[in-house]
Amino acid sequence: MWYYAEPLARLIEALHKLPGIGPKTAQRLAFFLMSCPREEALGLATAIVQAREKIHPCTLCANLTDADPCQICRDPRRDRTVICVVEQPRDLVAIERTGVYRGLYHVLHGALSPLDGVGPQDLKIDQLLSRLRDGTVKEIILATNPNAEGEATALYLARLCRPLGLRVTRPAHGLPVGGDLEYADEMTLGRALSGRQEMV
Amino acid sequence: MWYYAEPLARLIEALHKLPGIGPKTAQRLAFFLMSCPREEALGLATAIVQAREKIHPCTLCANLTDADPCQICRDPRRDRTVICVVEQPRDLVAIERTGVYRGLYHVLHGALSPLDGVGPQDLKIDQLLSRLRDGTVKEIILATNPNAEGEATALYLARLCRPLGLRVTRPAHGLPVGGDLEYADEMTLGRALSGRQEMV
Repeated sequence: MWYYAEPLARLIEALHKLPGIGPKTAQRLAFFLMSCPREEALGLATAIVQAREKIHPCTLCANLTDADPCQICRDPRRDRTVICVVEQPRDLVAIERTGVYRGLYHVLHGALSPLDGVGPQDLKIDQLLSRLRDGTVKEIILATNPNAEGEATALYLARLCRPLGLRVTRPAHGLPVGGDLEYADEMTLGRALSGRQEMV
Repeated sequence: MWYYAEPLARLIEALHKLPGIGPKTAQRLAFFLMSCPREEALGLATAIVQAREKIHPCTLCANLTDADPCQICRDPRRDRTVICVVEQPRDLVAIERTGVYRGLYHVLHGALSPLDGVGPQDLKIDQLLSRLRDGTVKEIILATNPNAEGEATALYLARLCRPLGLRVTRPAHGLPVGGDLEYADEMTLGRALSGRQEMV
């Protein structure tokens, strides 16, 4: 990369490390950061530093937060008898966006994946179990991803939670809203049929 | 965006301002910057600040550089009788990558575009003309983009440069190497035919 002055080459390299940012995009972003208003470029740098300094996992639910416990764990209007377990903070955000869930969360920060060397000790499972001890929680929703790792993680957690006398649920599989039946894959359509519901 | 803690929301917003980065990608990048090694995230912030502090346009050719004059303008092996005029620093990089050009450059930082309010005074044209005054330069290659703004800019510069007794050229239009004739658009194929060359 001798085509670029050293500081520019280093910026392109740093941008290229971001997920989904190839060399061409990294170059485009770097040139943008050179030509945009100074405050905008420095604003991004400050935002990165500030976020890394102030954001940490909530000691209760492990969601990313700048307060402790986090906003959701502190909210007196949330239903403390249900915990929804998700893999990543972005999954929590996706569920919050639906507006239908008013319980608490627990973020695992990953899913069981023996191939990648991720075992139960690498996830926030101990922290989850200690939250279940005082008997407040009556239901646990295992909202891990509907793929191999997510299913394995849900099964593992279900086995841990059932002996505690909890209701253990998982979000329903089925047809996407607004989708076409003919475009659904066999697995999804099969699950939608076997999980069919009474019309009201 | 009340789903995110304030510093995280601000980081997502700052990333969303980058070109081609939508809200979903901004969120993905922000979560990556929260979970990657601390040095990597802070490294990106430092790279942005350093690049904005150290990089400026070369006083001769207006290419982005951390030295003045830039590496290319200082290089004694470059042919000082030819200047290749480009719109953006990235165009210079694209030409350098070909390895076939050994002359100097001039970066306009834009193209004439009356609709966007970009006139000759907004480009580095005066700076270019002052480089032509001492008579060293014999040829000027107008390598602006082959679109409406680039063509207009090339025509404008050609009219300024011809009275100075310079050879004024423009990169050839034609078929892309490795492309299929049937997929070339009419304009390109027409230019390739009218600009046909003797086989050797």
